[in-house]
Amino acid sequence: MSAYKDFLAPNAEYAANFGQKSTLPLPPAKKLAIITCMDARINVYAELGIKEGDSHIIRNAGGSAKDALRSVIISQRLLGTREIAVFHHTGCGMLTFSSPQLQKIVKDSDPTNPALQAVDHIDFLEFGDLEQSVKDDVTFLKESPLVLPETVVTGWVYDVETGKIRQIV
Amino acid sequence: MSAYKDFLAPNAEYAANFGQKSTLPLPPAKKLAIITCMDARINVYAELGIKEGDSHIIRNAGGSAKDALRSVIISQRLLGTREIAVFHHTGCGMLTFSSPQLQKIVKDSDPTNPALQAVDHIDFLEFGDLEQSVKDDVTFLKESPLVLPETVVTGWVYDVETGKIRQIV
Repeated sequence: MSAYKDFLAPNAEYAANFGQKSTLPLPPAKKLAIITCMDARINVYAELGIKEGDSHIIRNAGGSAKDALRSVIISQRLLGTREIAVFHHTGCGMLTFSSPQLQKIVKDSDPTNPALQAVDHIDFLEFGDLEQSVKDDVTFLKESPLVLPETVVTGWVYDVETGKIRQIV
Repeated sequence: MSAYKDFLAPNAEYAANFGQKSTLPLPPAKKLAIITCMDARINVYAELGIKEGDSHIIRNAGGSAKDALRSVIISQRLLGTREIAVFHHTGCGMLTFSSPQLQKIVKDSDPTNPALQAVDHIDFLEFGDLEQSVKDDVTFLKESPLVLPETVVTGWVYDVETGKIRQIV
């Protein structure tokens, strides 16, 4: 059984109750972009009171601002957002490994396959200190010449054991 | 008024009703990673019946699989996912511009700032045909040596005017 087969029934119900959402405009109403981790325990809409149409949601392993830069530029320059909130979280997988370790795992999975050497060119953007990683990502955004200087940037930690958010920057 | 000030009251309510979610494990229960766009109209949990703990959610401008590769490798090799569902959507901003156009917008915003030239090194990964973009991303994942060969990969279009999903691949 593949998980995708479970999409159809909930989607039919969602679409049947779609209502006013059919006319939502493309630009986010709150002029906001949220960057957070791909972690399965994170439900951005519920945890922050976000609704359809409110905010861009950018998610990747760790909630890396550096990894999100392409998306942030599009969000700001083409779709009018002027605020970014970066959320990292407790219990994050990014705290548990290093890029050389993961590169070795990938290459060792099939030592006869030279194509796996390509993994050595990927920086996995892991971090060792949760709060510092939030500060670093906020600094990255504030100092990047490609992010608009008037952008409001905040940095947060989400606690996966309590559901609570805490502002760091 | 900054949008982040609106996070606190909904978050307090979410945390007050957190319940069993406090003990969810790190690896996604459905062994699934969903890749989709950052678009503000997309509510992945509601639209696909996803719950906290079920699935990694990777989101970027367009729902690009190429942009998501770092996250996919971490998802598969460290956290055990074996299925990927790629969702692009109707009315996507990625259908409306080209990388040279956006690079020019950024550089023209402050012609006296040489640091803005850095934008020329960014491929914004726009696309011209929605269904083809889904097929291309599924092919990219199936052909990438860094994605596990046993991965179940599906490709979908989400319709922002109806809330309905449609499988392409």
